[in-house]
Amino acid sequence: MRYLLYYWPGIQGRGEFIRLAFECAGQPYDDVARRDMDAMLRIMGRKAKDRPFAPPFLRAGRLLIAQTANILFYLGPRLGLAPASQAGRLLAHQHQLTIADWLAEAHDTHHPIGSGLYYEDQKPESKRRAADFTRHRLRKFLGYFENMEKAKRITYVQLSLFQMVEGLRYAFPATMKRIEKRYPRVMEAHERVAELPRIRAYLASERRLPFNEQDIFRRYPELDAVS
Amino acid sequence: MRYLLYYWPGIQGRGEFIRLAFECAGQPYDDVARRDMDAMLRIMGRKAKDRPFAPPFLRAGRLLIAQTANILFYLGPRLGLAPASQAGRLLAHQHQLTIADWLAEAHDTHHPIGSGLYYEDQKPESKRRAADFTRHRLRKFLGYFENMEKAKRITYVQLSLFQMVEGLRYAFPATMKRIEKRYPRVMEAHERVAELPRIRAYLASERRLPFNEQDIFRRYPELDAVS
Repeated sequence: MRYLLYYWPGIQGRGEFIRLAFECAGQPYDDVARRDMDAMLRIMGRKAKDRPFAPPFLRAGRLLIAQTANILFYLGPRLGLAPASQAGRLLAHQHQLTIADWLAEAHDTHHPIGSGLYYEDQKPESKRRAADFTRHRLRKFLGYFENMEKAKRITYVQLSLFQMVEGLRYAFPATMKRIEKRYPRVMEAHERVAELPRIRAYLASERRLPFNEQDIFRRYPELDAVS
Repeated sequence: MRYLLYYWPGIQGRGEFIRLAFECAGQPYDDVARRDMDAMLRIMGRKAKDRPFAPPFLRAGRLLIAQTANILFYLGPRLGLAPASQAGRLLAHQHQLTIADWLAEAHDTHHPIGSGLYYEDQKPESKRRAADFTRHRLRKFLGYFENMEKAKRITYVQLSLFQMVEGLRYAFPATMKRIEKRYPRVMEAHERVAELPRIRAYLASERRLPFNEQDIFRRYPELDAVS
């Protein structure tokens, strides 16, 4: 199967959760918008019944699949990155959807008022929301995944959890430095993914885009107040 | 199969999307927390590997499934409320996940700073966020679903879209009155669900909780500014 991934070319964003799955499996994929942005915009402009609301989306044969967790639910078994049983797959998907909620809350620390507005136009609100996130929500999510069953094998959930820790360390370095030792199993899961040979090679390659302040995780020191 | 649904007993909330599926299918279900809140809290307090992050969750035999869209993905085919093909099921799930994003944004109009804070402690921020929602995001989501293929048969996506329109009309009556005629297919899909005999009976029953200001959709006139 030839896989075509469509995502904004300048950021890791939600596309990164899909890229990590392909990279971990050693599965070639075409990151289309990195070479041809118009191809992505053409699909988004169509009025087809399977039109995505937003990137990322995946072309796999005749299927066009959108929503990150939906794409991973589809790809997981095909890439050897999902549990074998139905119960295991539903639970992995449940965890992925919880990660999606967590990611949206991380995004909203710098866009609490409107995703169409600049950060500069919602700074006081961002400060309040980021304080609530670092004091409460971040810890609730980390605590939840700390109690997740230790993975016998790597699934797309572990890859996504790796990406969350990477992004949170980038966006909230002081907060993470202070609290992450309370979540040793999450950090161990992160380390385990970081050491996979294919992931190490990917992270060192040009395919891995650097974090930046157009992305979901952004380093704004004023939002990283430790309390 | 005996289905046990667990959700906060005083609100429609995310649980309502599951209730509508059971009601539409004529499938009996036990809405556990309406009679025994402690039973729900006990499951949430366990450190089991399938522990939900938050309600709603569903007990179906040995499975415990959380995340609204995940529950509907599981229930859909079993209740005759999902498309038959794999492509159709992935697309229905994609739409449901987009509805979940939309619902989270509707919620954040009255909680833009923190879900653990009172509305009264984030009123100016709510006003800004609600203005962005009613001017931009609401219309973008409605426009997206307006272009969705007309359903040949009722699926859980149509039921969920019905619930979105119900909630939006409750929370933003002036805005909806002004803009909803631009989305005739969405409103027609809403009407079609409202007229299903089992749904009509459900809506008239005591099982359907009234909307209220503890719920996801809240009627705060100051957030319903028409522009």
